[in-house]
Amino acid sequence: MRVAGCTLCETEGGVPVWRGARVRVIRAEEAGFPAFYRLVWNDHVTEFSELSPADRALCMEAVTRIEQVMRERLQPTKMNLATLGNVVPHLHWHVIARFDWDSHFPAPVWAGAVRAADSAALAAVQAQLPVIDGAIAQALTALLG
Amino acid sequence: MRVAGCTLCETEGGVPVWRGARVRVIRAEEAGFPAFYRLVWNDHVTEFSELSPADRALCMEAVTRIEQVMRERLQPTKMNLATLGNVVPHLHWHVIARFDWDSHFPAPVWAGAVRAADSAALAAVQAQLPVIDGAIAQALTALLG
Repeated sequence: MRVAGCTLCETEGGVPVWRGARVRVIRAEEAGFPAFYRLVWNDHVTEFSELSPADRALCMEAVTRIEQVMRERLQPTKMNLATLGNVVPHLHWHVIARFDWDSHFPAPVWAGAVRAADSAALAAVQAQLPVIDGAIAQALTALLG
Repeated sequence: MRVAGCTLCETEGGVPVWRGARVRVIRAEEAGFPAFYRLVWNDHVTEFSELSPADRALCMEAVTRIEQVMRERLQPTKMNLATLGNVVPHLHWHVIARFDWDSHFPAPVWAGAVRAADSAALAAVQAQLPVIDGAIAQALTALLG
């Protein structure tokens, strides 16, 4: 099901990382947060609780695989998961690696910055993204085929 | 497992709504967002992906029951779900009903306010909280016993 005018129905939504029948993974390219992925439900669904129990489990196991790859490769201070959708009400999960040196930590990425990010640390994360993209794609293929 | 100095190991964390063996539900009492609940994992776990697959499913079905009660009783513009834990790294899920008249909509609750909330609408939500607390408790008992 596709809805005219919905950004996530009409566009990929970011850098394509992996696509399956039910979900896709994109990299968000949010400034200051290179390790920011989104799990997008391909069909236009608004709320998480609209999914069937089996689809909720599939969705969260997919989110978990992304988190696991990011934890293993980046050793973040904390992982952040969220589904908001106030602006784009098409189910998508933010999966964000947070670091004690990032511009907002410990505030949420949606709050104000509390410092300038460590640019060398940012570049080091950025440099790992091709490998992380590949590892996420591999993990999602292993989970969902 | 309890960790000394952890707010969610040492305190309930908010207004008690329901408590089971694995999880509890509290009402957060965040100013401007009366319909703001938290699902707290009772043991001290930091990341969602540290849970076993069965515990992840239990956790998200519990979150889903809270969301379903809030959607049914409040017809929010959008539900927001998040696990951040940057300040209190003890697994908890924010379950927040958002309304187009609230002080921050469509921005996340952690961003800046964009308007004064509609105080009559806020009071109307507040007035429903005892019934919603009870319905959440009933739904969690039905799910988890």
